[in-house]
Amino acid sequence: MDIDAATREQLQNWEKELNAQYQRICEHELSLDITRGKPSADQLHLSDGLDGILNGEYRAADGTDTRNYGGLEGLMCARELGADILQVPVEEVIAGGNSSLTLMYCAVLTGYLFGYAGNKPWKELEAPKFLCPVPGYDRHFAICEQLGIGMVNVPMTDSGPDMDAVEALIEKDRDIIGIWCVPKFSNPTGVTYSAETVERLAQLGRIANPGFRIFWDNAYAIHDLDNQVNLANIRTATVENDTADSVIQFASTSKVTHAGAGLAFVSASSDNLASLKKQMQAMTIGPDKINQLRHARFFAEFTLLKEHMHKHAQILKPKFQCVLSHLEKAFKDSDLGEWENPLGGYFVSFNTRPGCAAAVVELAAQAGVKLTPAGATFPYGVDPEDRNIRIAPSFPPLDELDTAMSVFVLCVKLASVRKQLEML
Amino acid sequence: MDIDAATREQLQNWEKELNAQYQRICEHELSLDITRGKPSADQLHLSDGLDGILNGEYRAADGTDTRNYGGLEGLMCARELGADILQVPVEEVIAGGNSSLTLMYCAVLTGYLFGYAGNKPWKELEAPKFLCPVPGYDRHFAICEQLGIGMVNVPMTDSGPDMDAVEALIEKDRDIIGIWCVPKFSNPTGVTYSAETVERLAQLGRIANPGFRIFWDNAYAIHDLDNQVNLANIRTATVENDTADSVIQFASTSKVTHAGAGLAFVSASSDNLASLKKQMQAMTIGPDKINQLRHARFFAEFTLLKEHMHKHAQILKPKFQCVLSHLEKAFKDSDLGEWENPLGGYFVSFNTRPGCAAAVVELAAQAGVKLTPAGATFPYGVDPEDRNIRIAPSFPPLDELDTAMSVFVLCVKLASVRKQLEML
Repeated sequence: MDIDAATREQLQNWEKELNAQYQRICEHELSLDITRGKPSADQLHLSDGLDGILNGEYRAADGTDTRNYGGLEGLMCARELGADILQVPVEEVIAGGNSSLTLMYCAVLTGYLFGYAGNKPWKELEAPKFLCPVPGYDRHFAICEQLGIGMVNVPMTDSGPDMDAVEALIEKDRDIIGIWCVPKFSNPTGVTYSAETVERLAQLGRIANPGFRIFWDNAYAIHDLDNQVNLANIRTATVENDTADSVIQFASTSKVTHAGAGLAFVSASSDNLASLKKQMQAMTIGPDKINQLRHARFFAEFTLLKEHMHKHAQILKPKFQCVLSHLEKAFKDSDLGEWENPLGGYFVSFNTRPGCAAAVVELAAQAGVKLTPAGATFPYGVDPEDRNIRIAPSFPPLDELDTAMSVFVLCVKLASVRKQLEML
Repeated sequence: MDIDAATREQLQNWEKELNAQYQRICEHELSLDITRGKPSADQLHLSDGLDGILNGEYRAADGTDTRNYGGLEGLMCARELGADILQVPVEEVIAGGNSSLTLMYCAVLTGYLFGYAGNKPWKELEAPKFLCPVPGYDRHFAICEQLGIGMVNVPMTDSGPDMDAVEALIEKDRDIIGIWCVPKFSNPTGVTYSAETVERLAQLGRIANPGFRIFWDNAYAIHDLDNQVNLANIRTATVENDTADSVIQFASTSKVTHAGAGLAFVSASSDNLASLKKQMQAMTIGPDKINQLRHARFFAEFTLLKEHMHKHAQILKPKFQCVLSHLEKAFKDSDLGEWENPLGGYFVSFNTRPGCAAAVVELAAQAGVKLTPAGATFPYGVDPEDRNIRIAPSFPPLDELDTAMSVFVLCVKLASVRKQLEML
């Protein structure tokens, strides 16, 4: 299919044929869902040994009675797990509750209401704003939107955010006080930032507002499908550039153990952590240390965690292969769409021809296949070119995913042909 | 000892004698702590069956896979537990994570930044402020202080806050948008609000700013030492007064199961909950449902919870008796101090003669007995009369508590005599 070169008649024939296929699928009354990056039941099952692992022994190795109150920074053994995942010193890690999103919210709130490390609270700036590499993660954008922090789109490339654009924006606007980054297996494009990108990000602290912070959501730090993909260490890079205060890192075990009941981690310089802890201590006496102890026992050594992640990869790989082979088969050498081949993470990001994404999502919905709403991967839910669709292959069983992808590629074709007809 | 009637010489003799006793105690180099309302190891042990209770069955009765993401309101069976504790309809309850303080913070933040149920955000008022019955709970005050919400002291009586003062303040100041209440076994006085107080509180919604909210922290709802003390139902009272939006209730199992790893609950009208959920959904995908399921299984029936609380009472009662008998023996019929006899909760609140509390805490500290800092029970840490000291008997073993109380009463006597000498 070469849509740009097709005549009206050819397009009309395609539309008729594709629509007939589509109508037949609609009759099947499917009910499939590939919207969110949720682990499958098989994956969750890998961690079922967590409940009961304590065997009545609620004391941590350092003597802490995990059942009682206290310990805003979390248990030492849980902080060590976070330090291993993020590859940072343990004293720069806080181990929290079940949600890294909560830690991110607290971290944004801290900058917005109180300011980091003696800097002016962002709310006192005329128009505080975050740079948002797009497509990106809707829940990051929702935090900014709720707090009234502006968002500026920056394109994602295959080596991370477009750093020329990032630097130019920061140089000309002192009210840019943050950037959202998912540096490894980026949500949704699957891209891992190159070493050069990490280095250039680490240098931003030299030119940006001193209150500027990189929100480094390393959600997929150990979520490789095959060989380990290396991400340059942002902490090392900022320390070397004398910009250690410019980054706040996050990770979690949500896609390692149980998605709703894992541990979250935040890591930053001691000055940043001091600001953050001041906010957090008004909000909580401390995290659930019992669940932290469970995790520390479950992953008594980092090699156990690595082996555990390998089991996840074995379950996830066929699902990614399913999505990618559908896309390859349908769109290779066509002008109907573009995508990356992720080496890990939870998503495949697909770009339709301009102006087709919303129509694809709508067609799929009517055929019983639920996709992430078009635009969701952009601030304010607005994809300026209406192109991006996030595919989340992890949750459904393989046969359902296969069916859903058949519907997806058909909807892409049908929407593309119809769009072209409209424009002729 | 009748200090007011004593001569200088008599006071000097007392001082000498008490100081000699005090110096002997200091030589013992004690290290005792009666600062915070933490359950003892014996109490925590009552809930050790929680870990492992799931026996591999992670699905809730309604089919929810508790291991995965989702469900901002919490599991239905956990919400039911909260509804039983607060005696409210389950659809008005959200079951959260391990901290009711977090839910309170979110609830204050919602009012402050976004406003409840269409009302103006508090931050847009000239001088938003909370009424704070004093003495009260330091962590309540810390939330207001952090967000820059003003605090106005209102005296606690033996039937709750001085309602004449509350009503007068609210009538004359539209910027009063909240009041902190611990209605049963109040922290720290141990008082339970009378039915009349509850009724008058429920009527405040008629005269206050429409954005006004009562923060009803029912932390000790089921924490009776003996017979059940009845607290009038504030929800019923507000519904009858057509002021249902004026109250937000909180509870937790922190002092029921494991203090650091329990469940927290918030309950309010559907309009209030809608406002709160809007804030919360930017902050979390949902609470730890696995721990919620553990609790629901542990307390499969409300009677089990009642029996469990009876076991707590059996452990706590001798400790309260110890504190009270020390106070009785030392100060009955004296003018050295005042206290309530709490029928539940976690504290005994002691008022020294004016201007003595800080000195008592300092003397006790030097003798190796750590007390809650004087002033901690007041907004901004300032007790205008320097009188209140919160005693927390729950955590130390009985013999240590007994020793600590001997030191305490001695320090009260010594500080009182010294103060009187200063003033002569």
